[in-house]
Amino acid sequence: MLQLRKDPVVDRWVIIASERARRLKMVKQPQKNQVGVCPFCYGNEDKTPREIVAYRPANTAQNTPGWWVRVVPNKFPALQIEGDIDKTGEGIYDMMNGIGAHEVIIETPLHDDRVETIDEKQLGEVLWMYKERSLDLKRDERFRYILIFKNRGVIAGASLVHPHSQLIATPVVPKRVVEEMRGARSYFQLKERCVFCDIVREEISYGGRTVIVSDRFVAFVPFAPRFPFEVWLMPRKHRSCFVQITREEVNDVARVLRETLLRLSKALAEPPFNYMLHTSPCRESDNEYYHWHIEITPRLVEVSGFEWGTGFYVNPTAPEDAAAYLRGVTLP
Amino acid sequence: MLQLRKDPVVDRWVIIASERARRLKMVKQPQKNQVGVCPFCYGNEDKTPREIVAYRPANTAQNTPGWWVRVVPNKFPALQIEGDIDKTGEGIYDMMNGIGAHEVIIETPLHDDRVETIDEKQLGEVLWMYKERSLDLKRDERFRYILIFKNRGVIAGASLVHPHSQLIATPVVPKRVVEEMRGARSYFQLKERCVFCDIVREEISYGGRTVIVSDRFVAFVPFAPRFPFEVWLMPRKHRSCFVQITREEVNDVARVLRETLLRLSKALAEPPFNYMLHTSPCRESDNEYYHWHIEITPRLVEVSGFEWGTGFYVNPTAPEDAAAYLRGVTLP
Repeated sequence: MLQLRKDPVVDRWVIIASERARRLKMVKQPQKNQVGVCPFCYGNEDKTPREIVAYRPANTAQNTPGWWVRVVPNKFPALQIEGDIDKTGEGIYDMMNGIGAHEVIIETPLHDDRVETIDEKQLGEVLWMYKERSLDLKRDERFRYILIFKNRGVIAGASLVHPHSQLIATPVVPKRVVEEMRGARSYFQLKERCVFCDIVREEISYGGRTVIVSDRFVAFVPFAPRFPFEVWLMPRKHRSCFVQITREEVNDVARVLRETLLRLSKALAEPPFNYMLHTSPCRESDNEYYHWHIEITPRLVEVSGFEWGTGFYVNPTAPEDAAAYLRGVTLP
Repeated sequence: MLQLRKDPVVDRWVIIASERARRLKMVKQPQKNQVGVCPFCYGNEDKTPREIVAYRPANTAQNTPGWWVRVVPNKFPALQIEGDIDKTGEGIYDMMNGIGAHEVIIETPLHDDRVETIDEKQLGEVLWMYKERSLDLKRDERFRYILIFKNRGVIAGASLVHPHSQLIATPVVPKRVVEEMRGARSYFQLKERCVFCDIVREEISYGGRTVIVSDRFVAFVPFAPRFPFEVWLMPRKHRSCFVQITREEVNDVARVLRETLLRLSKALAEPPFNYMLHTSPCRESDNEYYHWHIEITPRLVEVSGFEWGTGFYVNPTAPEDAAAYLRGVTLP
């Protein structure tokens, strides 16, 4: 059984997923899966667990080709969907069963596509799927948070090259989210304004860190980025939870996300990267103080003992320089 | 000028060290520095900034061979020693000058030595140097925290192979330390016991996660480790600050640290790793609730978007299995 264990000092939860150990070796090898054997390609639908949902023509059957976005359970889940949480103590420690959902969103049937080169409409479909899966999982009362993220490249933690993102629903609100919510709540108590709304205003008015400003979204390098060329995408209007997104907003964010990733890809020669969708926890979806956003972090530098020991990051690239560089990239 | 900038939501400080950018490329290349050109080898003392202190025979001059442990300023410092902190605001954001110390502790004159193979006496000298540098820097009122850490291997953030560790003194207490102190303080308020003392008792009494138990120290895999084969070393008696360490304790911890690293090295084929010395902040050195310790984290798995997005780690190796495996390693 997968376990969730809590560090007794810093309240950090860790998933102990011994079943995933065999993946350890896979991850360290180069990504060499070919089109013919890739479990995310057309014709190999039987190589994944059975699909949860897919966007596909009405005349095609589940687990057959024809789909354009497909969601399946992760074959090596970090959390498992069946069972009770069963909180228990062990000596001075706290633990619970590793209950949750761990899904893979296959972003395109085309093995060699990249998220920055698939067209806006297709990327919009992927984002819409994020919303639909979130809405579905929010109905499960065991879940407190839904994280959607993407790993690209071995260094960023990806084990397959075919474009995909992942969704993990957790039975506790993760530490980093608790911190963000706490910070956002205390800013609101002080100023009666959403801190992210203030950030949006500040960034648009200053301009020196923005990469793209569209009607509804802004892509910018944050003031205190952990990593070189880190970029955040934020709705310009207050939106606490990603599931509130409308079709018009999805179309706009797809365009901005695609162009941001294309600029990063051109500027940094297709770097490995992660992006993470930050949104409100399931039980406080609609609030005045938090604001969903996407954080994109290229993996250009290794994280060292200093960062691990302190949570303090050394970033060798000034955000203003990174933003200017990204704005200056010539797109095809 | 190096800058410290604060994230307005989660109070995370970041060092913007644009001067270090040229290091970016170096880090991505394989470590190919040879004995002849290594700045940490005998005869190349002029290739480092001038030495701060060294253990060397009385008849040898500074910045010449003969030393057995040598401390120099980092050539590409993340923080600089000269200047005032000058806290300022920029729009809604907070920043200050990047004042601090960034030193390199060269652990041996021998290029191909490894921390786990140098003898206990030499490792004891390295640890004693940690103490002496900490005591010296604690006298500087600008500094709030002193972090000592080691990166081994490119993946762990090392850019040179010659055995060395680093020390960074920071003008703010880093986020991770604030969290640890907060957790330790609230546990103490509840129970009037140090949480780490409780952990030591629990681990020794349970035994299933211990790797080495000596007279004065215990090496164990923590209950909720972020990474496979993570090992913590803790004094068995309450010691809030590393600088309180005595010669007897240094000898004992040198033996336990060396053996732990040797076991990790044998078990995992010389993995890249970091270790970090966690100790009390400068202005609350002596207290009842915190307990210094060393955290060793082998770098076997990549950190993915899930971990970055949530601060929630997925560990594929149960700590009890890792500890049993490390205990079972046959040493020469």
